[in-house]
Amino acid sequence: MAATVDLNADMGESFGPWVMGQDADVLEVVTSANVACGVHAGDWDVMAATMAAAAARGVGIGAHPGFPDLQGFGRRRMHLPDQSLAHLVQYQLGAAQAMARAAGTQVRHLKLHGALANMAAADQHMATVCYKAALKVAPDLVIMVMAGTRQQDAAQALGCNLACEIFADRAYNADASLVDRSRPGAVIHDPDLAGRRVVQMVEAGAILAEDGSRIPTRIDTICLHGDTPEALEIARSVRSGLEAAGITLQQFPGAPL
Amino acid sequence: MAATVDLNADMGESFGPWVMGQDADVLEVVTSANVACGVHAGDWDVMAATMAAAAARGVGIGAHPGFPDLQGFGRRRMHLPDQSLAHLVQYQLGAAQAMARAAGTQVRHLKLHGALANMAAADQHMATVCYKAALKVAPDLVIMVMAGTRQQDAAQALGCNLACEIFADRAYNADASLVDRSRPGAVIHDPDLAGRRVVQMVEAGAILAEDGSRIPTRIDTICLHGDTPEALEIARSVRSGLEAAGITLQQFPGAPL
Amino acid sequence: MAATVDLNADMGESFGPWVMGQDADVLEVVTSANVACGVHAGDWDVMAATMAAAAARGVGIGAHPGFPDLQGFGRRRMHLPDQSLAHLVQYQLGAAQAMARAAGTQVRHLKLHGALANMAAADQHMATVCYKAALKVAPDLVIMVMAGTRQQDAAQALGCNLACEIFADRAYNADASLVDRSRPGAVIHDPDLAGRRVVQMVEAGAILAEDGSRIPTRIDTICLHGDTPEALEIARSVRSGLEAAGITLQQFPGAPL
Amino acid sequence: MAATVDLNADMGESFGPWVMGQDADVLEVVTSANVACGVHAGDWDVMAATMAAAAARGVGIGAHPGFPDLQGFGRRRMHLPDQSLAHLVQYQLGAAQAMARAAGTQVRHLKLHGALANMAAADQHMATVCYKAALKVAPDLVIMVMAGTRQQDAAQALGCNLACEIFADRAYNADASLVDRSRPGAVIHDPDLAGRRVVQMVEAGAILAEDGSRIPTRIDTICLHGDTPEALEIARSVRSGLEAAGITLQQFPGAPL
Repeated sequence: MAATVDLNADMGESFGPWVMGQDADVLEVVTSANVACGVHAGDWDVMAATMAAAAARGVGIGAHPGFPDLQGFGRRRMHLPDQSLAHLVQYQLGAAQAMARAAGTQVRHLKLHGALANMAAADQHMATVCYKAALKVAPDLVIMVMAGTRQQDAAQALGCNLACEIFADRAYNADASLVDRSRPGAVIHDPDLAGRRVVQMVEAGAILAEDGSRIPTRIDTICLHGDTPEALEIARSVRSGLEAAGITLQQFPGAPL
Repeated sequence: MAATVDLNADMGESFGPWVMGQDADVLEVVTSANVACGVHAGDWDVMAATMAAAAARGVGIGAHPGFPDLQGFGRRRMHLPDQSLAHLVQYQLGAAQAMARAAGTQVRHLKLHGALANMAAADQHMATVCYKAALKVAPDLVIMVMAGTRQQDAAQALGCNLACEIFADRAYNADASLVDRSRPGAVIHDPDLAGRRVVQMVEAGAILAEDGSRIPTRIDTICLHGDTPEALEIARSVRSGLEAAGITLQQFPGAPL
Repeated sequence: MAATVDLNADMGESFGPWVMGQDADVLEVVTSANVACGVHAGDWDVMAATMAAAAARGVGIGAHPGFPDLQGFGRRRMHLPDQSLAHLVQYQLGAAQAMARAAGTQVRHLKLHGALANMAAADQHMATVCYKAALKVAPDLVIMVMAGTRQQDAAQALGCNLACEIFADRAYNADASLVDRSRPGAVIHDPDLAGRRVVQMVEAGAILAEDGSRIPTRIDTICLHGDTPEALEIARSVRSGLEAAGITLQQFPGAPL
Repeated sequence: MAATVDLNADMGESFGPWVMGQDADVLEVVTSANVACGVHAGDWDVMAATMAAAAARGVGIGAHPGFPDLQGFGRRRMHLPDQSLAHLVQYQLGAAQAMARAAGTQVRHLKLHGALANMAAADQHMATVCYKAALKVAPDLVIMVMAGTRQQDAAQALGCNLACEIFADRAYNADASLVDRSRPGAVIHDPDLAGRRVVQMVEAGAILAEDGSRIPTRIDTICLHGDTPEALEIARSVRSGLEAAGITLQQFPGAPL
């Protein structure tokens, strides 16, 4: 049986006249796009352009909601009551659905952004609040989770469609958490290494941690970045590495776990 | 055949801790609520609470999009390219749809807010851009238009579902435009007068202008306000006047014209 | 020697068309006004009107900066790098200074708002960052601090002008912290009790804690509220209680401690 | 007597993580920087960094206020009452003054941005409202005006310090207005031509219009851009052209006209 995997990246993070990322180039590499929803980044015009471009290339579209903190790009931790958190996610998801419909396509998945994602990765209750809120709006939505985190626990317990994600350019600890950025080797800058490592993990069906340990997991999608020339090079290397290994690149099916 | 008419009011215009309007009281009077969509007023929490309350009382829900100008409450004219205008409307409609779905209900209609509404009432092209954009997202949506304006022309030309609206508390010129607020008698402050006048217009199937002229129009809904105690009194008087006249209050069917 | 004390309240917290508080009534009671600076509340128009009204009554004006979170009214904790925190305070202080100058008056003091204030009350480093930043812009500024907290420690260590503040309507723990709002008696609702208690504390030169203990402190100003009818009644009772006790109400001199 | 002239450019237009312009390069060329004030662009962190960099190179600092429309970058026309317009300018000027003071420097001049500038260039009343408001906050401020427009008329009538500005890369009509961008030759793309033309105008003490006519004017400063590589090349060519012609580059004195 031939292995398949999806490649995803955050996109549509420009705002008004301010450009972020190299979306056109990234669209050549990925099979799924996480589109900012006009709250921590993006706006209605950016969303429309991004979704039209993604749809034109057959790239799957995800809503990528974040905290209401534009200046901080949704990277500053905020503390919201559960109900507000739920509404915040629903609002952004709905806006994304309408922009997708207007572009003749649809929102297939949802991935949390920035501080919201990091907090939910460590807090199953918070992840559950966000995902349950989204599923109330779109029951068939695929929830994209960081493999091995409380995000995955939350989605699994909800029994919903989900896609497990690993990072192409980050080293892992033995508990499936990411090695802190301040530690040497935490971020992988070598495109070849990133490419080889991703192929190994997909073939192994496991996260390969820094200490050599092996954490079995379903790997549905690989997170890539496109915000720097280096990131783009890594993304391309991961893609060509997977292709060379005979792994088919296509959108995750999103089956429950 | 028994006449029926709808009563609508703008709602959900609070923001964060700032309260605007007397939504709970207004919900006792109206059959349709135009809910602000988090751009010129409202936020995800306010939308959720407003829609839940409306749904609980069987009040129909409309998306009420406006310009991106919170401090100005969407009342300051802005000049956006057509495409931006379309995306602006789609974004807000989508957000409203998701909040409605999460509240177990749905968005039935759309009504433009403030300066966006006033500009579209005088500019059929602009109205067309907004309505077409909304219908692309929700083809069955009922477009609520100010009767006799370019808004109505636009919706009629699109062949979509629509609801024609007249104002309970404003005097009309012979061309169906509103008498300028600076002129005496432009705004009706007497609840009894407002009530009688609305009954007359609904029974006549026409706008009755200040100069005595009669502008035949379908009247599907009456616009009420709830932002002041006086406004609320007028709203109640209009409702009881219509009921006393044997006119049934219910949501507009929204048939094309 | 006759005792004197200042009465302060937060003001200028309206935004665009959304009214908050009863500023005109509060201005009859207080001697200092903490004016929101257009970031967590207030806007340039509200600031101008508030400062003009305060100046007309001889009420001292303070800048009241908060977190960049309008929907949350600056009450949600945010985590900003020290440098950002410093710039955030300077920006708001400068805006307030200009609005005051345009109104023919000046900013005398600075008081932190909401979550920013609460975090600084527990974290001397954070308070120091904020106060140092403000003093760089206005070296003679009086820093208003919650008596007995890390805010006071920070201002004292900086050797700057400061004013120590106690709350009229909150019970204190033995360590000068406020009794948690969830505990019975934490918030004082009885205007007479609030008035008597404030007079006792001012005469004692000490915070009188719930358990009967006495925490000596300079008391330069009493924090009042005006957001509810009840709050306004308490404010008036505190004022008349102090006057009846022969305590002069006037702006704090702001001497260093 | 040796001629002198100032070179100015808009700067500090980044926002949060979104970078705009090439400020470090532009600072090598100009003698005055117009710094965005956190409303249409810029934020407190960007302002602080921009002003520190400008001060370190001896570049004069100006406040560059714009409309409250971040997504539209202050380029969309808005219609505000006079009083709001005045407060809007004062707020931004005050914020800039504080950030400058914190950076050990000061705001020397004020230049309006985007749609606000264009509207004021055609409307002396509007320009007067903005300038008067700014001068109330800072009576010695130098008002930078587009030479030959209603901006200049307004500043001249106020008798304030002012600096007359011409554009390095735009062709002029015979009435000192800019040739419409849609017309061929309206925007100058050739660095050499731009450099020669500016030298001619400075030496002539006049705007040289497209049709050959000569509009005498004091030329205090040349407006340059740094948002594209081409713009930067033009800026450098203008600077070296002026230097080669023996014209001294230094901050405008700002004398009244």
